[in-house]
Amino acid sequence: MQITANNPDRKSWLHVNKDTDFPIQNIPFGVFLTKEDIITIGTRIGEYAIDLGAFHQLGYFDGIPLTDDMFMQDSLNDFIADGRKTWRLVRNRIADVFDAENSSLRENKKHRDIIIFDMNDVEMLLPIDVGDYTDFYSSKEHATNVGMMFRGKENALMPNWLHMPVAYHGRSSSIVVSGTPIHRPYGQTLPIGETTPVFGSSKRVDMELETAFITTAANNLGESIAVDEAWEYIFGMVLFNDWSARDIQKWEYVPLGPFLGKNFASTISPWIVTMDALEPFRCESPKQEITPLPYLQQERKDSTYDIKLEAILKTENGDLNLLSKSNFRYLYWSMSQQLAHHTINGCNIRTGDMIGSGTISGATKNSFGSMLELTWAGKEPIILKDGTKRTFFNDGDTVILQGSCENDNVKIGFGKCSGKILPPINLK
Amino acid sequence: MQITANNPDRKSWLHVNKDTDFPIQNIPFGVFLTKEDIITIGTRIGEYAIDLGAFHQLGYFDGIPLTDDMFMQDSLNDFIADGRKTWRLVRNRIADVFDAENSSLRENKKHRDIIIFDMNDVEMLLPIDVGDYTDFYSSKEHATNVGMMFRGKENALMPNWLHMPVAYHGRSSSIVVSGTPIHRPYGQTLPIGETTPVFGSSKRVDMELETAFITTAANNLGESIAVDEAWEYIFGMVLFNDWSARDIQKWEYVPLGPFLGKNFASTISPWIVTMDALEPFRCESPKQEITPLPYLQQERKDSTYDIKLEAILKTENGDLNLLSKSNFRYLYWSMSQQLAHHTINGCNIRTGDMIGSGTISGATKNSFGSMLELTWAGKEPIILKDGTKRTFFNDGDTVILQGSCENDNVKIGFGKCSGKILPPINLK
Repeated sequence: MQITANNPDRKSWLHVNKDTDFPIQNIPFGVFLTKEDIITIGTRIGEYAIDLGAFHQLGYFDGIPLTDDMFMQDSLNDFIADGRKTWRLVRNRIADVFDAENSSLRENKKHRDIIIFDMNDVEMLLPIDVGDYTDFYSSKEHATNVGMMFRGKENALMPNWLHMPVAYHGRSSSIVVSGTPIHRPYGQTLPIGETTPVFGSSKRVDMELETAFITTAANNLGESIAVDEAWEYIFGMVLFNDWSARDIQKWEYVPLGPFLGKNFASTISPWIVTMDALEPFRCESPKQEITPLPYLQQERKDSTYDIKLEAILKTENGDLNLLSKSNFRYLYWSMSQQLAHHTINGCNIRTGDMIGSGTISGATKNSFGSMLELTWAGKEPIILKDGTKRTFFNDGDTVILQGSCENDNVKIGFGKCSGKILPPINLK
Repeated sequence: MQITANNPDRKSWLHVNKDTDFPIQNIPFGVFLTKEDIITIGTRIGEYAIDLGAFHQLGYFDGIPLTDDMFMQDSLNDFIADGRKTWRLVRNRIADVFDAENSSLRENKKHRDIIIFDMNDVEMLLPIDVGDYTDFYSSKEHATNVGMMFRGKENALMPNWLHMPVAYHGRSSSIVVSGTPIHRPYGQTLPIGETTPVFGSSKRVDMELETAFITTAANNLGESIAVDEAWEYIFGMVLFNDWSARDIQKWEYVPLGPFLGKNFASTISPWIVTMDALEPFRCESPKQEITPLPYLQQERKDSTYDIKLEAILKTENGDLNLLSKSNFRYLYWSMSQQLAHHTINGCNIRTGDMIGSGTISGATKNSFGSMLELTWAGKEPIILKDGTKRTFFNDGDTVILQGSCENDNVKIGFGKCSGKILPPINLK
């Protein structure tokens, strides 16, 4: 089936700013709450939120096999479970109905009033009921940087790293949508030179500049997904800030990996941008230094996406400080390799699973995806516009991730993934 | 509220074998499928499965505030979410109705035929929709044994271990109910003395003799649970076999912890035994060698439970070979300490989260909870009844975990947690 929704020449009858992340070629999916307390699945064009529950009820999806309540839900899981054919039919139809040439909804004020909201009048909610959340560690630059700081130059990149996309299980319950404030976590840390830990709030709250992809059910327990088939099971992507407390992490992580240093919160952007919308931005992955085992060898060379990423620190005075400019294409391991590896042992992937990229760092210092790397473990503070310094984040700091793809014809963006750090909650 | 269901003098009008795990004092909760394709929440007395959906519809819970469909569900999550008061009211009522002195159901053949099934006529299903699954590592003996094998005697117990209950995130999707066969996983392993990994099916499939507890929603994101309050949020326990592929694990686990070496399957026993039923078996935890930080200091001394555990290998000829005899009380860290630690950073616990103990090993070799320890990394094979040897498990082997508490008055058991290992599924 053609992805007609991607036609770069298409214009919408809804007004769209030229630099928007959400032209009619994007058509992402999210869940929002209206002022009338209605929760619905929706999409976005420019500064308009579109209620797909109402859109469906009013007949605009007629001819597409969909359950009646497919979009009148508080998560996208059922829609994602329907599979790629449905995603494509639905996205193509939305593009048609909002096409400048199509008058059906444009000329129906009553329907427009029911379906279309100003973005300022809706509250974005978590778009999926996350099943399992896995975080990969697929940026060679990030793994090398962190390895050097935690274990020294000799042991920076572990022997397994070039042979497999290393990953660990994360925590689903603490995944929150952009805009949710994050409380500074308490925990145990080991002061330098000491052998006994102390208790207190983390002094090293950090971001991780990541993306994540969302899956549809892929395999039964015991079965695996072939690397070249993995694409079938990826619905779309979000920006992802995997908040980290480096001092807690450093003391706890041996031998079973990160736990409380990570699971106090992870923030995702509210709109899931589909793989279909990102298709024009496929590009080549970095050359792999070691030929991986056959189950990780992928046929297609354009196995990654050119997605520009930024991390910005907004201080309480409103200043925006650019911390990092990175790109999804820097990742050494592709999403299809990640999924093939994840399932090679028979681990089953369900609808709504979220799979993080790991921190995406580039080769140069201004492209590092965490404060740990940007300030080299706090040794090289960043000087902000207001003259203050940061090694890790202060209470009151807001971290904003942004991401977009752009070519001569169109820009497809993710909007913002934002979270403000608040002081810890008093202990009981 | 009194736990009248625990009255040791109570007898049921249902016939119960003397050595059953499920006397009327147990009243565990599970989910089963009948031959008429009805899925319901149920309990068990002796060799009878009791349909609590029908029990409720026929009025036997009258007077207890419950939603109409509370038990006509395919998971216990809604019931667990209702909290401890409801659990206790429901369990007390079931004990009353099946008490030998109570004739209401006993004398109503029509109702009995609807409510009561022979255990042989039902199929047990996964009793909960697992949210997040966390696995602790709370047996000092196990952590020391594994540490010695993986890292040598000097680094066996990591410096953090005596200061905190170390844990990591596991995989929820691959948690299956007892009786589900497990396919041997494929993966990468590093042959001894080599620097390049090879691909194949695991040669070191192992069990982990564990228990797990199931929670009700406990805290909002950012809040923590005090160690002495943690008990409020624990619904009950199951036996838990956290299958492990030691060769895959060894190559992959640095630096982020176990992943594919674990997430191919974990098996739980089908009946959740409530903490109320286990209350008479509280006992003292091992003395902690280092006073933990205040948030881990618990008031009550009887912070663990005397639960005898066994691991048995059933070979294809039907022989039962006892592999290990251990006890839940050997664990160094208590469940309340685990929950307090898990939430000290504000990580939110939801209804249906499953929290594993980690492998429970005792001090002597016959009490070790994994083949890794029992055969000392494969160096000391076990000789079975049929004369064959095992280091790790063969295809066709069935691993059975059993657990029970017993005092002069009553025995409360968990039934079986069983899984048979099948050959790997052919790769696509």
